[in-house]
Amino acid sequence: MVNNSFLFQMIMTQTRLVEVRQNVLKHNDVLARELRARFEKARVYVVSFVSSPGSGKTAFLEKTLTMLRPNYRVAALVGDLATANDAARLARAEVPVKQIVTGTICHLEARMVENSLADWDLNELDCLFIENVGNLVCPSSYDLGEALRVVMMSTTEGEDKPRKYPTIFNTADVAMITKMDLAEACEFDKQAAFESIQAVRPAMRVFEVSSKTGAGMNEWLQWLSGNFNNPKSKI
Amino acid sequence: MVNNSFLFQMIMTQTRLVEVRQNVLKHNDVLARELRARFEKARVYVVSFVSSPGSGKTAFLEKTLTMLRPNYRVAALVGDLATANDAARLARAEVPVKQIVTGTICHLEARMVENSLADWDLNELDCLFIENVGNLVCPSSYDLGEALRVVMMSTTEGEDKPRKYPTIFNTADVAMITKMDLAEACEFDKQAAFESIQAVRPAMRVFEVSSKTGAGMNEWLQWLSGNFNNPKSKI
Repeated sequence: MVNNSFLFQMIMTQTRLVEVRQNVLKHNDVLARELRARFEKARVYVVSFVSSPGSGKTAFLEKTLTMLRPNYRVAALVGDLATANDAARLARAEVPVKQIVTGTICHLEARMVENSLADWDLNELDCLFIENVGNLVCPSSYDLGEALRVVMMSTTEGEDKPRKYPTIFNTADVAMITKMDLAEACEFDKQAAFESIQAVRPAMRVFEVSSKTGAGMNEWLQWLSGNFNNPKSKI
Repeated sequence: MVNNSFLFQMIMTQTRLVEVRQNVLKHNDVLARELRARFEKARVYVVSFVSSPGSGKTAFLEKTLTMLRPNYRVAALVGDLATANDAARLARAEVPVKQIVTGTICHLEARMVENSLADWDLNELDCLFIENVGNLVCPSSYDLGEALRVVMMSTTEGEDKPRKYPTIFNTADVAMITKMDLAEACEFDKQAAFESIQAVRPAMRVFEVSSKTGAGMNEWLQWLSGNFNNPKSKI
């Protein structure tokens, strides 16, 4: 079916691909480290969200921004392949929001975050949220300089996602179970979901929330704002 | 923040990455073309499923296999990053099933399909299903030699997925809306979902199904089996 020279060529290409990809990742890490130092200096707490498409990242971000806004200075960057729908939705939260359109790239990279920050004064923010492209695989490899990475799974997706996508759960700090209002309709097995998370990442902190009913939001926001580094007073 | 030589190095690396990736894709296309010819010669109809994680690919595949089994010779290959859970679930359908564990690769490639077929006699099959890794981005670039690509979205994911992930909808032949039993609980807006699909892919055929209740399955299977090329008689 396939001749030897074709196979050889393919192996060489794959080897080069791995090398080149490692270089890209290395460059990303250098940039992410610089971003992290810049965020710390400006005392802005940076939180990124990763999940599969449709887990409810944008709805959860809108709820989070709206509830934090009265007391803290917050802003968001949202990544998407093709549309600016999310930024339009988030405009309702009445905080600064910017869309990063990635084209065909299936994840955010540190350089995209850096480019988007050009005209924002980080010293004016307490917390910056970064919503990654919906993807449970590739974003796990790219450090964005964030202080906290939140991985989300909805009650509608099945309880085994952590076992099936272990890397992204391993690189995250906190797990968020979203759409708790649909738990009953989906026959969501909470025990199985917790076991799947703990199997991959023992002792991981898990929150259960519903952006629709607001359940669990106070607990999450109280915990989150406890991490803010000396918040600037709201004028 | 970043010096010029670093930027130059980064641009060169990105350029090489694009070149190398194009080579990989070209090799994949060559292999996929060979696979397609092989499938046609053996008169086996090959159907692939793509969707985000948790859209219900495996449940739908199990239902499809179980309902086809009495009348047709069917088999399945299922791709996953880390576990063989899906193959274990599909064993209940009592048809030949093989798991392709991709490691850190976020999509199936033609060579993985070819490797998995080594000890199967394609002449003995009417229809072979290939379940891709849960991912709405990268699988769109990899032809697997399939005759039909089905993209799935569940009622729980939000109606705008086609607009947000246009490439995968553009490379698919048929769209499948899954978890119709949850449509009401999720306030699923069918009109908006259809508009989003048509905006990206006018006149795309859309099926609405529930693997749980069985709704829509007969219509799908009748349409699907109409595509089978001269099915072999079941002994």
